[in-house]
Amino acid sequence: MTTPYQRLTEYFHKIAQINHATTFLQWDQLVMMPPGGNAPRASALAELAAIRHELLVSPKLKDLIEEASRLTRKESHPEQERSLAEMERVRENAACLSASLVKAQSLAGSKCEYEWRKQRKENDWDSFLVNFKEVVNLARQEAEARHAASSQELATPYDALLELYCTGDDSALIDRVFTRLKDELPQLIEKIMTQQPRETITFTEAFPIESQQQLNHKLMEYLGFDFEKGRLDVSTHPFSTGVRGDQRITTRFRTTDFLEALLATAHETGHAGYEDGLPEKWNHLPLGKARNMCIHESQSLLFEKQIFLAKPFFSFFTDTVYKFLPQAKNYSPEQLRSVCCRVEPSLIRVEADETTYPLHIVLRFEIEKALINRSVEAKDVPEMWDVKMRQYLGLSTSGDYANGCLQDIHWTDGSFGYFPSYTMGALNGAQLFTTIKKEHSDWKDRLAEGDISFIRSWLGKNIWSRASSMDSQEILIKATGEGTNPVHFINHLTSRYLDNQPC
Amino acid sequence: MTTPYQRLTEYFHKIAQINHATTFLQWDQLVMMPPGGNAPRASALAELAAIRHELLVSPKLKDLIEEASRLTRKESHPEQERSLAEMERVRENAACLSASLVKAQSLAGSKCEYEWRKQRKENDWDSFLVNFKEVVNLARQEAEARHAASSQELATPYDALLELYCTGDDSALIDRVFTRLKDELPQLIEKIMTQQPRETITFTEAFPIESQQQLNHKLMEYLGFDFEKGRLDVSTHPFSTGVRGDQRITTRFRTTDFLEALLATAHETGHAGYEDGLPEKWNHLPLGKARNMCIHESQSLLFEKQIFLAKPFFSFFTDTVYKFLPQAKNYSPEQLRSVCCRVEPSLIRVEADETTYPLHIVLRFEIEKALINRSVEAKDVPEMWDVKMRQYLGLSTSGDYANGCLQDIHWTDGSFGYFPSYTMGALNGAQLFTTIKKEHSDWKDRLAEGDISFIRSWLGKNIWSRASSMDSQEILIKATGEGTNPVHFINHLTSRYLDNQPC
Repeated sequence: MTTPYQRLTEYFHKIAQINHATTFLQWDQLVMMPPGGNAPRASALAELAAIRHELLVSPKLKDLIEEASRLTRKESHPEQERSLAEMERVRENAACLSASLVKAQSLAGSKCEYEWRKQRKENDWDSFLVNFKEVVNLARQEAEARHAASSQELATPYDALLELYCTGDDSALIDRVFTRLKDELPQLIEKIMTQQPRETITFTEAFPIESQQQLNHKLMEYLGFDFEKGRLDVSTHPFSTGVRGDQRITTRFRTTDFLEALLATAHETGHAGYEDGLPEKWNHLPLGKARNMCIHESQSLLFEKQIFLAKPFFSFFTDTVYKFLPQAKNYSPEQLRSVCCRVEPSLIRVEADETTYPLHIVLRFEIEKALINRSVEAKDVPEMWDVKMRQYLGLSTSGDYANGCLQDIHWTDGSFGYFPSYTMGALNGAQLFTTIKKEHSDWKDRLAEGDISFIRSWLGKNIWSRASSMDSQEILIKATGEGTNPVHFINHLTSRYLDNQPC
Repeated sequence: MTTPYQRLTEYFHKIAQINHATTFLQWDQLVMMPPGGNAPRASALAELAAIRHELLVSPKLKDLIEEASRLTRKESHPEQERSLAEMERVRENAACLSASLVKAQSLAGSKCEYEWRKQRKENDWDSFLVNFKEVVNLARQEAEARHAASSQELATPYDALLELYCTGDDSALIDRVFTRLKDELPQLIEKIMTQQPRETITFTEAFPIESQQQLNHKLMEYLGFDFEKGRLDVSTHPFSTGVRGDQRITTRFRTTDFLEALLATAHETGHAGYEDGLPEKWNHLPLGKARNMCIHESQSLLFEKQIFLAKPFFSFFTDTVYKFLPQAKNYSPEQLRSVCCRVEPSLIRVEADETTYPLHIVLRFEIEKALINRSVEAKDVPEMWDVKMRQYLGLSTSGDYANGCLQDIHWTDGSFGYFPSYTMGALNGAQLFTTIKKEHSDWKDRLAEGDISFIRSWLGKNIWSRASSMDSQEILIKATGEGTNPVHFINHLTSRYLDNQPC
């Protein structure tokens, strides 16, 4: 006879198969699908979402989890208890919103995002505000519903949205960490700006796409990607997705610059490493999923910023660049690296360097927290944005909505709570790499030979294999001796940009 | 209030979304997926199949169809009546087999197919027979169960398997048609053989894959394929799949020969034309599906054999060949076409020319019919094969199982009843093209300009838009004035191979 827990395992196996279908249909949509596939694909994805939702909100699932939890508590089985808690989290996230709210959000989000594409081009805040008010209104309702339904003690409604992406890292923690960044980064940036050369190189050569493709494959191989278990393709915005055994990552190519694609490829290879390193024994279970986006982004940024841009690795890899792109021989490894390590405050987040980027995030975090917790209104956003941009990065966006609060897609469909994970990830990545370097005194020599196997092993043991078996701060403490501490990120910036260290 | 028929429409809309997911996951599996995806993909596809099966065998569906049918008969609504009949056909096909039989077939089929790959290489009939006996045994059970459950009056159990692929064309009809081929083709082949030049050209050049890809895209454009609504990719075996608005076809490239890829591309473009031309109003309904494989294959073979190999079109297209593959300029259009129009009896079906191919099919039809209807046993197959190969094509396969009865994959997993559609399709294709030519006296001039729009319009009106709203013979009668008549195919061969006509 099967136990309730075994029946739950089968239940989540079934849900995982629906997720599998959704995952690869979405990948196909972004990478392969011709325009004519849009309408039929949207219907198919909606149906799969409905099937998944039905499975998650079914009273049968609720009963099974309750029954299994009772038995598990009696038997004192900590792993199963944790597994059941993660199942319940997934169930609760799906079950706590009314169908009418979900539908209203989907409609309002689609409309706002669709019209935003034009409104941003036309710098048209007033028209955007009409849709955005409704998106904010519904996101507040969502946050409050999640807040009320949560079995955890969450401080504010915004924390309930954070739970979706930064699971376990609450707004108090993030606030504490971000305050430190706000205090230290502006001066650091100023120092770097006075110290770095005034000019940087600009490419005049054309770098053929096909050679770049081969070069990016090569980079992935050095970074430990297994092409028997995944692919590299091209999409408008680089992303990674997939299942155990089949990781799909994408990058994008321009003939005028080959570094952008390499950075994106390194980044997505980090995401894929995490996903493929999740433990097989918990496959298909919520327990076996990646912990949260703050850890996920720490992996991608560790690969992109810490490994790829570390001097020894970058110099090593430049030989490969020269082989596939002989045109690049016009530049020394140092010159090429300096293009990626240029610090300069700018208006656009996605183009920002790693030093100024966190301040873009702090700004968004503070605004969205205030919006969701009802301390400011949608109409107040442009002014708040301008004030904070002046304060953090010394730039004004007054009247320039397109390069100000209209620049991101995230808020248009109501994805509040996502932004902080970018910077929490950067900090966690720096912190993890600090420990890895401490534990491997020969790290420079290894990277100079293109060997990152010791990093993958370390991450496999300390991060990937832990999946969702503990909270993200607990994972960090086990791995590095402490929770997220911004000092490691600040040290990293200081070493790289002021002290010219090999990191 | 929704009517039972409207509820059925929604029900089949839901099934269509599951089919959509299955379609593109299977495409991905054959075209994109890395090896590591095999196991997770198999699980996902199995789950989707289970969901689809559950929906189809649900008593709710049966009741709905019965209720709607009662109402529809009262209201005398022929289109709805037909639609309900097609729904019932799909439901019945899924519901009439026991779960234990389906499972046993899946296991036996997988085992037989898997071991066949090695057994064929080793010419090992005895080992194959062990598995094959079980496959035949289960296929007979399937045929008998379908025969018993069918609401139609099917003459034999084999007819119940034919229904799956040749829907509406029964074994008596196929037998009549094939007898004529058996009577006439051997002499025709002999005549052609004495008349055609003894030698043909063999390529010594290398034809770059990338240029071939561009060339195949160009061919598809001339054949009316809309790249906003589909893609061309590469797979081990060319195939076509997709949904309205998103047709995916594949071909395969060799550097030593570019004609094979072009023929496959033309063939699959014909399949895609049919699928994309199915009427939008019946989208997602069984009524709106392609009629059967005898019609489907008529479209692909019409594009491949009738249009692409018609002298005026082939000559027109050779200019494009020369542009993308300058190496091909060593050969005249006539020389290139003669490579595709070479007649010679051979052992392997998939390599056979259009004249000898039907005899391979007649042989398989006769053997599989006898097997399923229990008039011969699995162990008798090699001898029957040898006797028939001598009789129809003058070749012996005695002791040569690898090039005899072990050559095809179809029987290994129990797909009996499929083979006849290849030749029924060739005959139907020739018959349709005869009518098209009759109705368009300027067909030669149009093809000489690469214009096939008149053919697509005609097929759209006479075949594609009819979907499953009538039986296949009825479609042919409406379109050409008669049901499948082999005389048109024989005339086609005579004109092309003996009379050197432009067709």
